[in-house]
Amino acid sequence: MTQQIILKSRPIGVPTPGNFETRTVEIPAITNGMVRLKAHTFSVDPYMRGRMSDAKSYIAPYSVGEPIVGGGIARVVESNADGFNVGDFVLGMIPWQEEMVVDAIGLQVIDGSIAPLSYYLGILGMPGLTAYFGLLDIGKPKRGETVVVSGAAGAVGIVVGQIAKIQGCRVIGIAGDDIKMNYLLNELHFDSVINYKTTTNLYAAIASACPSGVDVYFDNVGGEISDAVVAQINKDARIIICGQISLYNATTQPTGPRIQPTILKRSALMQGFIVSNYASRFSEGFKALAHWVGSGQLKYTNTIYHGFEKLPEAFIALFKGKNLGKLIIEV
Amino acid sequence: MTQQIILKSRPIGVPTPGNFETRTVEIPAITNGMVRLKAHTFSVDPYMRGRMSDAKSYIAPYSVGEPIVGGGIARVVESNADGFNVGDFVLGMIPWQEEMVVDAIGLQVIDGSIAPLSYYLGILGMPGLTAYFGLLDIGKPKRGETVVVSGAAGAVGIVVGQIAKIQGCRVIGIAGDDIKMNYLLNELHFDSVINYKTTTNLYAAIASACPSGVDVYFDNVGGEISDAVVAQINKDARIIICGQISLYNATTQPTGPRIQPTILKRSALMQGFIVSNYASRFSEGFKALAHWVGSGQLKYTNTIYHGFEKLPEAFIALFKGKNLGKLIIEV
Repeated sequence: MTQQIILKSRPIGVPTPGNFETRTVEIPAITNGMVRLKAHTFSVDPYMRGRMSDAKSYIAPYSVGEPIVGGGIARVVESNADGFNVGDFVLGMIPWQEEMVVDAIGLQVIDGSIAPLSYYLGILGMPGLTAYFGLLDIGKPKRGETVVVSGAAGAVGIVVGQIAKIQGCRVIGIAGDDIKMNYLLNELHFDSVINYKTTTNLYAAIASACPSGVDVYFDNVGGEISDAVVAQINKDARIIICGQISLYNATTQPTGPRIQPTILKRSALMQGFIVSNYASRFSEGFKALAHWVGSGQLKYTNTIYHGFEKLPEAFIALFKGKNLGKLIIEV
Repeated sequence: MTQQIILKSRPIGVPTPGNFETRTVEIPAITNGMVRLKAHTFSVDPYMRGRMSDAKSYIAPYSVGEPIVGGGIARVVESNADGFNVGDFVLGMIPWQEEMVVDAIGLQVIDGSIAPLSYYLGILGMPGLTAYFGLLDIGKPKRGETVVVSGAAGAVGIVVGQIAKIQGCRVIGIAGDDIKMNYLLNELHFDSVINYKTTTNLYAAIASACPSGVDVYFDNVGGEISDAVVAQINKDARIIICGQISLYNATTQPTGPRIQPTILKRSALMQGFIVSNYASRFSEGFKALAHWVGSGQLKYTNTIYHGFEKLPEAFIALFKGKNLGKLIIEV
């Protein structure tokens, strides 16, 4: 028997603990090609909010009554699959369960000697690859350009800003508290930071932080923060739509200033993406990120919740901006 | 002495005849490098509305008290410039004047034997090149894809739709009256047309006309028409922002549904442009357009106003959707 957390009901607006339920389930015997795993670390990510609704999106919705599935690291405790040995740590999309039997297809054995295991959920995993491909492939930052990143202290944002610095750009981060501001400025050496919660005039703050305008905007949050950044874009600006976390819990159609006239006047590009669009190039991205991590050019940090039962609380915390870096749950 | 039309005052909202004034001015003697021209045909184009305001844009505003300048064709009546002979027809950015002395730099002698002279203001000129580069370079339509064009019966729209047909696409045009509908369907062989003025539910009409969704949206108008199209875009859709005529006369910041969540979910691209971005490739575009015109694959039509004094009225008519094809003024 093991603990499992299911989607009890679809959230309306911000998710609440009541949308989740813990139940005890049996663990089936393993058959050919399967492995039995003990959960080690879970990842909670903003895109999972989309799967909790049943609207059309790039990924199928979760079913009510079924376990939440997300990125995670687990230890193999029994194996009936080639290439997976007891004691291996694996990365994959796994159910929110303490112990589980799953198909080994889609799991990847990871090497804890290169970097901390948790990095495979962050800088060497989906968030890192998201930052890498979004910034470099869509944003195409050039030396001396100004790059603004929203959600700058999050799992993706801290990688975006540091890669932009490696490219020789001036980097401005937007985030929501003093601990984050301090980390971005003093640990990651962003050129400037803006606290959107305490700034009275965001338009003026961005104009002041970007005296040469904005060439690349890596958008993790959307909404009014983005309105203020888009107002400052230069000719031929690139806007990368990576996330819109400020809108994920909206219960009515969000409205705002129309941006097409600005996109037109500035000959700007706006491109949405998800990291799986780049699946065929993941090894390239991983190699580059691992190199920069190894050389010390990329730093990373986690906000850690402890205990399997904290999964819903940790997930909900994402939308309150409580995490510095990657939010993970150690079982 | 000659007639000249100046910008008397900056329009607020839709331009009115009172924003313009006709005055009589002297024509200076021509000096070295100059030509004296008699106006033949003027072009009025939506982008000129932007120059009548003093907001920052991709092109400098007109000065109050100075003549409007726009695309036009004129006949050389006196020349002091190499390569320009009396009787030549030239294309260029010229002031709204019946007769004028201008620098020959920037003027281009055009050949009326290839196509009607007026085509150099339309399908073989800026609107044609706009359609060509916007659709092919940004939209990258593939055989079998669905292409929607708004402002479909305008100077750019009719070229976009026909080039998309040449590329093997299914083409849906959005326009505003029955004469235009009929022209797009029966003369230009669009696959489907939508009259946005009489359709009660534009979202449903577009969904019905595009059963496989929208792969490419060439947007000339913006506003609520675009909201309805964007709601139907497919994964990897391309949205070309060419014009936003529905918003050019707005006196307050236009607002509407935020589109970034859709751009994100569909991994869509949105790109604004002006044709001058492609100046280095104009000869390629001209050659292709001239070939298609010569082979009969591209048709074109003008709405013609007669008389120099009709310039303001013709310009204002652009914003009332009165033109089928290119709106020109024959002097």
